[in-house]
Amino acid sequence: MEKNNKGNYKNQVGQSASGSIKTYKKDSEVSYALGAAPTFELLKKYPQQTRRVFVHSDWERGAASEELFRICRNLGIEPEERNKAFSVLSQKENCFVIGEFEKFYPALDPSKTHIVLVNPSNSGNLGTILRTALGFGIYDIAIIRPGVDVFDPKTVRASMGAVFSLRVKYFDSFDEYLTGSDCGMEGRSFYPFMLKATMELGSAPLAQRCSLIFGNEATGLPDSFLNVGESVIIRHSNEIDSLNLPMAVGIALYEWKRSNR
Amino acid sequence: MEKNNKGNYKNQVGQSASGSIKTYKKDSEVSYALGAAPTFELLKKYPQQTRRVFVHSDWERGAASEELFRICRNLGIEPEERNKAFSVLSQKENCFVIGEFEKFYPALDPSKTHIVLVNPSNSGNLGTILRTALGFGIYDIAIIRPGVDVFDPKTVRASMGAVFSLRVKYFDSFDEYLTGSDCGMEGRSFYPFMLKATMELGSAPLAQRCSLIFGNEATGLPDSFLNVGESVIIRHSNEIDSLNLPMAVGIALYEWKRSNR
Repeated sequence: MEKNNKGNYKNQVGQSASGSIKTYKKDSEVSYALGAAPTFELLKKYPQQTRRVFVHSDWERGAASEELFRICRNLGIEPEERNKAFSVLSQKENCFVIGEFEKFYPALDPSKTHIVLVNPSNSGNLGTILRTALGFGIYDIAIIRPGVDVFDPKTVRASMGAVFSLRVKYFDSFDEYLTGSDCGMEGRSFYPFMLKATMELGSAPLAQRCSLIFGNEATGLPDSFLNVGESVIIRHSNEIDSLNLPMAVGIALYEWKRSNR
Repeated sequence: MEKNNKGNYKNQVGQSASGSIKTYKKDSEVSYALGAAPTFELLKKYPQQTRRVFVHSDWERGAASEELFRICRNLGIEPEERNKAFSVLSQKENCFVIGEFEKFYPALDPSKTHIVLVNPSNSGNLGTILRTALGFGIYDIAIIRPGVDVFDPKTVRASMGAVFSLRVKYFDSFDEYLTGSDCGMEGRSFYPFMLKATMELGSAPLAQRCSLIFGNEATGLPDSFLNVGESVIIRHSNEIDSLNLPMAVGIALYEWKRSNR
């Protein structure tokens, strides 16, 4: 196989530009998996949604690049060596692979446990929550608007590609979630996590099929959620205002898993 | 009280420069609490270590600024309105108060439970861990070098000032921690958290006085820790490589707290 002077495999990597590359916007049709790990996840879980794959000329070629090129070949995608894509799309230095994909909009599974995020505002936090959810075997995430964009490349990256294994759906209001076909309200338990709650996490088992509900990073859930199901507090010392949001979600998931072994 | 055209209280805020302001370096004698909340924590917990307080001219004056000026006055510190400090020290836009402090080096309390971080590399993660530790009533943190700088302003900020309520101490090796007077090895239980461990978190109670030991974000703990005390795993699905570090620490602390109610 012919190598160029950087050790790259010329005949595996397209040198021609296949179209323009634009900074991600919330209303874009496509988004980007930044980095090799999330791009592999994308190709595995949503091959049909993958449009283009960009690789950086500085990417050290080896087993990982061979594997990427093999998968792309099988899908009929020609990876493009196009450094411009990285300067446009990625602020991080250690990003050498980018997967471009059409956004997807799965429905939630009403038979399963859900995480409900009411007005989450931080993309890094959302990514961490997605990764943690996948770690605890929860696949369904409802986001009540306004909420940070799950397809923001920062979220996709922070999720380490977990977003491609989950069902994430947006709702205009909690009522819309509650009364729609995604929820399966009948027989479902609801646990809003609130500092004003009276039930302490761990004092009683969490139902196997439930919705674990969390508020915004700065403001938490509105008081109206005290009337939704059984509100829960994760007890902590009064030396901090609150646990951070991903931490609260992770601890709740750990306890849910413990309750349902 | 005379106000200037921005509504600021001239006679509370020094306009003269008290000395130079330099970008933070690891070997600096001083560091910085970026933001009002961590600066209040600094002034409360380490008033004697506080050297200077900077406020931005855009800071909206009200109850918070009055309180800050009152505390500073009591300590004989004159807050300086000096926007240059913010352009030099802070990358964030929403930072209007900075507290400059001399670094401090407390010993650990050998009678208490410790968190031991072996080679932590991310300042944001360390800050989140500190905040969570304070939330679960753990005050003693050992860091095994090489490890990220706890006085990095990014860490101080991510901890939301929790660093000023904790005892954080660096050791050149785990052995140095183990055999020194900070540890109090006699009667202490050791729990290294490792993917190769056999004991699952939650399957047995954690000792009241113990050391919860965590490895580097990317590499975890070396295998040698399998011989230290009783190694523990936080069970998760094989769809993720691992929980992120602050998450693992937070879940461990939650379980420790549950074990010792």
